[in-house]
Amino acid sequence: MPAPLTLVALLHGPDRPGLVARVAGWIFARGGNILHADQHRDMEREVFFQRVEWAPAHRAAARERRDFEAFAATLGMTARVASSTHRPKGALFVSRADHCFHDLLLRWRAGEFAGDFGCVISNHRDLAAAARHYGLPFHHVPVTPRTKAAAEARQLRILRAAGAEFAVLARYMQVLSPGFLKKFGRPVINIHHSFLPAFAGARPYHQAHERGVKLIGATAHYATAALDDGPIIQQDVARVTHRHSVEDLVRKGRDLEKLVLAQAVRWHLDNRVLVYGRKTVVFD
Amino acid sequence: MPAPLTLVALLHGPDRPGLVARVAGWIFARGGNILHADQHRDMEREVFFQRVEWAPAHRAAARERRDFEAFAATLGMTARVASSTHRPKGALFVSRADHCFHDLLLRWRAGEFAGDFGCVISNHRDLAAAARHYGLPFHHVPVTPRTKAAAEARQLRILRAAGAEFAVLARYMQVLSPGFLKKFGRPVINIHHSFLPAFAGARPYHQAHERGVKLIGATAHYATAALDDGPIIQQDVARVTHRHSVEDLVRKGRDLEKLVLAQAVRWHLDNRVLVYGRKTVVFD
Amino acid sequence: MPAPLTLVALLHGPDRPGLVARVAGWIFARGGNILHADQHRDMEREVFFQRVEWAPAHRAAARERRDFEAFAATLGMTARVASSTHRPKGALFVSRADHCFHDLLLRWRAGEFAGDFGCVISNHRDLAAAARHYGLPFHHVPVTPRTKAAAEARQLRILRAAGAEFAVLARYMQVLSPGFLKKFGRPVINIHHSFLPAFAGARPYHQAHERGVKLIGATAHYATAALDDGPIIQQDVARVTHRHSVEDLVRKGRDLEKLVLAQAVRWHLDNRVLVYGRKTVVFD
Amino acid sequence: MPAPLTLVALLHGPDRPGLVARVAGWIFARGGNILHADQHRDMEREVFFQRVEWAPAHRAAARERRDFEAFAATLGMTARVASSTHRPKGALFVSRADHCFHDLLLRWRAGEFAGDFGCVISNHRDLAAAARHYGLPFHHVPVTPRTKAAAEARQLRILRAAGAEFAVLARYMQVLSPGFLKKFGRPVINIHHSFLPAFAGARPYHQAHERGVKLIGATAHYATAALDDGPIIQQDVARVTHRHSVEDLVRKGRDLEKLVLAQAVRWHLDNRVLVYGRKTVVFD
Repeated sequence: MPAPLTLVALLHGPDRPGLVARVAGWIFARGGNILHADQHRDMEREVFFQRVEWAPAHRAAARERRDFEAFAATLGMTARVASSTHRPKGALFVSRADHCFHDLLLRWRAGEFAGDFGCVISNHRDLAAAARHYGLPFHHVPVTPRTKAAAEARQLRILRAAGAEFAVLARYMQVLSPGFLKKFGRPVINIHHSFLPAFAGARPYHQAHERGVKLIGATAHYATAALDDGPIIQQDVARVTHRHSVEDLVRKGRDLEKLVLAQAVRWHLDNRVLVYGRKTVVFD
Repeated sequence: MPAPLTLVALLHGPDRPGLVARVAGWIFARGGNILHADQHRDMEREVFFQRVEWAPAHRAAARERRDFEAFAATLGMTARVASSTHRPKGALFVSRADHCFHDLLLRWRAGEFAGDFGCVISNHRDLAAAARHYGLPFHHVPVTPRTKAAAEARQLRILRAAGAEFAVLARYMQVLSPGFLKKFGRPVINIHHSFLPAFAGARPYHQAHERGVKLIGATAHYATAALDDGPIIQQDVARVTHRHSVEDLVRKGRDLEKLVLAQAVRWHLDNRVLVYGRKTVVFD
Repeated sequence: MPAPLTLVALLHGPDRPGLVARVAGWIFARGGNILHADQHRDMEREVFFQRVEWAPAHRAAARERRDFEAFAATLGMTARVASSTHRPKGALFVSRADHCFHDLLLRWRAGEFAGDFGCVISNHRDLAAAARHYGLPFHHVPVTPRTKAAAEARQLRILRAAGAEFAVLARYMQVLSPGFLKKFGRPVINIHHSFLPAFAGARPYHQAHERGVKLIGATAHYATAALDDGPIIQQDVARVTHRHSVEDLVRKGRDLEKLVLAQAVRWHLDNRVLVYGRKTVVFD
Repeated sequence: MPAPLTLVALLHGPDRPGLVARVAGWIFARGGNILHADQHRDMEREVFFQRVEWAPAHRAAARERRDFEAFAATLGMTARVASSTHRPKGALFVSRADHCFHDLLLRWRAGEFAGDFGCVISNHRDLAAAARHYGLPFHHVPVTPRTKAAAEARQLRILRAAGAEFAVLARYMQVLSPGFLKKFGRPVINIHHSFLPAFAGARPYHQAHERGVKLIGATAHYATAALDDGPIIQQDVARVTHRHSVEDLVRKGRDLEKLVLAQAVRWHLDNRVLVYGRKTVVFD
C-alpha cells in the first residue's frame, strides 16, 4: 500500500488575526483534510509560524503546491510546500571519521528518513569502499588551502550532477566557504562536536577536558557564512567526570554526534525545521 | 496590566475531515483570534483531540464558553472550555513528608500555577503550622481502617466548603476509595514514587533497591478506582548505582517527586491535559 | 607502543576490617603498582566488593593471577582476575533486526571493546552476508519449538568450536533454555526492549503504548533461567508523548537498545561488572 | 544511635608507585578500617588523587587527623582531613530571588547536608523574615559601587563572627572581589545560571534565548578571582524549544539552579570535591 499523498507547508510572516482559520479554511474549501497543524507565535517580534500537513482531495500535488504558495503570499506569508511523493536527494560529505557516516547510511537503509542520499564526497579516500558497499558513488575531492577554490567548484559540479537538494557534513572537518554555500543555495546540515556556543572552533573535546566541564555536548546546525554560528537544529549532552580522558570524551562524543545529527536530518527531511533569523522553529 | 482574557478548549471525539477548519472558522467568524492550536489524531482509534486557545472579541466569556461547547456537540465532540479569568481552587492532601508540600506551595507563591490552593488536609498534624504559615487553613482528618468511611465523608465536606475544583495528593500515602473519587467528581492528581508500571504498590524504593535497577522514577497520574493505574500525566527518572542505599534512593526520589508532581499540576491547571481512556494527551 | 600489561581483579566476600589494606599490601609487596581501585560495601548484608587494577612488576601474568586468586581465598574472598593481554572472544546471536548487530560490530571495529566477536549465530539467514562483510563466520541455526533442543545442542558446539567466552543476544528474540545457559557456563548478555521490570515479556513497546507511559526504556542484563529477571547491567530511557505511535516507539527504542547494549558489553569486557545475587555491582 | 566517628581524607600529589598500599597500610596499622576509598590518576600530569574514609580505632579524631596529614606530607602529598563529628558552619548569601534560598534551607532542615547554615547575608531585605523563620540571623548589607569595599569588610566581620567555614552564593547576583575571597580564605560556592562556559556574564537566559539553543543549563562552581571561571563542581541542562519564552527559560532554569547548587553543596560538605587547578575531582 503506497503512503497516501500529503502536503506539508512551512509558512511564516507577520502575525495577524485569523491566520489559522484562513489557512484551514483554504484547505477545507478545496476538499483537503488537515492531518497535523502546529503553529507558533514569536510574541516579541509578532511573527507567525505554522507547519500544516494535509491530504489534498486529488493527486495534482504540483498545482496545489503552487496554489497554496500563491495564497500564502496574499496573507503576507512566505510558504514552502513539500509533497510526500517527492523524496529529496542529498549529498554526504565525510572525511576520515566513519561513525556518523555509517550511522546515517544504516538509518537511511532502515527507512528512517523521508529522503535519500545520492553520493558521498570526501577529501580522503578512506571511506570509498564503504560508500560503494552502500550503493553510493564516492567522489574523492582533495582539499588544500591552495586548491580549495577549485575543489569547491568541483564539489558544486558533483552536487548539481547528482541533483542534490541538501547536504550533510558528517564530521567533514573542512569549512565550506560563504561563496560555496551561496552558490549551492540549499540547506547544509553540520554537526559540531560541542554544546555550542561553548567550545566553538577546533578541538572542542580538548577544550572541554581542559576546562573541566561535567557535561559534553554536540550540536547540529545549518551551515552559514558565520562559522559554528548557524541556526541550531538539535543539541544533546552526556555526563562526564574527571575519570574521563580526552579519548573517552571523544568516544562518548561519537554517540552524541550520531544521535544529534540523525535527529536533525530526520526533522529536516520531515519538513519540521523552519529557519528564522539565527534560530530555528522545530515542529516536532 | 491585566492579562488579556483568553479561552482554552480541550475537545475530542470521532475524527472526520474538516474539524480543524470548522473550529478555527467558528472562532474567526465571531471575531476571535486563535493564539495556540494543537491537535492530535489517534490513528488506530480514529479519535481527534484538540487544544485551542483564543482571545474572544468581547469579554462575555461565560456565553462564549457555552456557545463553543454547544458548537462542539454539533460536531460530535466533547469539549471543556476554561477561561483565563477563572483560577481554579484546589485542596492539598499531605501526610508527614513535607517535600512536595513545600515545593508546591513555594511554586504557588512564586506564581508558577494558573490556580490556587485553598486548604490543606492531612491525616497527621505535623504540617499544621507550616500550612498556616503559607496562609492556608489546615484540616486534621485522622484515618484508620475503622474510621475511613467517616473520614472520607468529612474530607468531602471540607472539599465542598472550600469549593475545591481539584485535589493534589502530595505523598498523602492513603488510598482514596472509589466512592470518594466518584462523589468528589473532580480531578485528583497523585504522585507515585516509582516509574509505573514498575514497582506499583507499597515501598517502591525498597523494591527498586532489591531488584538492582539502574534508574529510579516517579509518576504523576490521575487517581482512579484502579490503584496506581490511573492515566499517567508525567514521569521522570534518575540514575542510581549499587552505591546508593535505600535511603539515597529515597532522597534522590524526593527530587524526582517534586519535579514530576509540580509539572503535572502546572499542566493540569494550564488545561493541557486531556484524559482519554487510561491515557492522557498532554498538549505541552 | 603496546599497552602495558595490567591485571584486573573482581573480588567479593564477607566484609571484615583491613581488606583494602591487605589487597593493596599484597600487590605492593610483589612490586606491583595499583592503577585503579574501587570498592563497595553492602552495609545490610556485610559484603565487600572490590575491583582493583594493577601493573605487575613482571609479565608473568598467569602466575600472578593464580597467586592472587589463592591469596583472595585466604581472605575468604572469591576473586576473578583478568589480564589485559587476553582479549575474550564472544559469539553474537541475532535474528532479523540488524540495528544492534551493526552497532556492536562497528564499535568493535572502531576499537571500543576489550574483546572480540568470533562468530554470528542466527535463526534467520538475513544477516549472513553482512556478518561475512565484517569478516565473521555466520551460522544459520533455525529454531522451532520442535527442534529447539537440537538447535541448542548445535549452538553449543559452535560456541565451543569458536572458543566463545561470552555471548551477546543482540535482539535474538529467542529464549535460551536454562539447560543451555548452564552448559555454556559463560556470561550471556541480553537486551530487553523495556525498562525492566516494567513490560517484561513480549511486545513491550505495544504494552508501553497501551499504558500511555511518558518514557520508554531498554535494559541490558545477564540472561538467567528466570526470563527477563537476570541481573541488570545498564538501563536508559527516552521521552515519548501521545504523538508517538508504536512504530515511533520502536524507532526510538532502537537507539536506546544500541546504546544500552553497547555500554553493557563494554563494561563487561572491561571487567567492571560483578554479579551478586540478582544484582550487579558496576565499577564504572 | 550516634553515627560512628569516621575520618575523610582528600589528598593529592605527584603520582608514584605504592601510594594506595601505603595509605591503606598506615590506616590499617593503626587499627582503622577503611570504609570507602576512591582514587584517580591524571595520566597526563602524573598526579594522584584520593578520597579515603575510615573508622579509626579510637575517638581521638584530632590527633589522627594531624598524624595523617603529617604522614601524607612524607609521601609528598597534600592532605585535608575532615571528621564526621565536625559539622562545618556556612553563610548563605542571597539577594531577592528565593528559590535556591528555600531549597537549600529546606534540604538542610531535612538533614540532607553534613553541615549547617549559620546566617544569611543579603543586599536586600526581602528574605529577612523568611530567614528568621528558619531560625537564622539575617544580615542586611547593602552594596553599591561606592560602598562595596565597606560592605565587603562588614561581610567579612559577619563571616568571622559566625565562624563560617564556607559560603554559598544562592543567586546573590553580586561579584565578590578577589580581595574578599582571599581574606575569607574559605570555599565559596556559586551558582551560575547557564551551562558554562557558554553564556558567561550577565543575563544568560536572554543570551540563550537570543541564540536559539535547544538546552539551557546551570553550573555550580567555586568562586575565584576569575569571574564565572572557577572550578566547576556540577552542571545540568534542561531541554527547551522555540515555544519557550525568556520567562519560561527563567522558570525552568530555577529548577536546574536548585538541583545543581544543592548537589554541589552536598558533595562539598561530604568532602567529595578536590580542587585541582581550574578543575575539580568529584569523588561521587
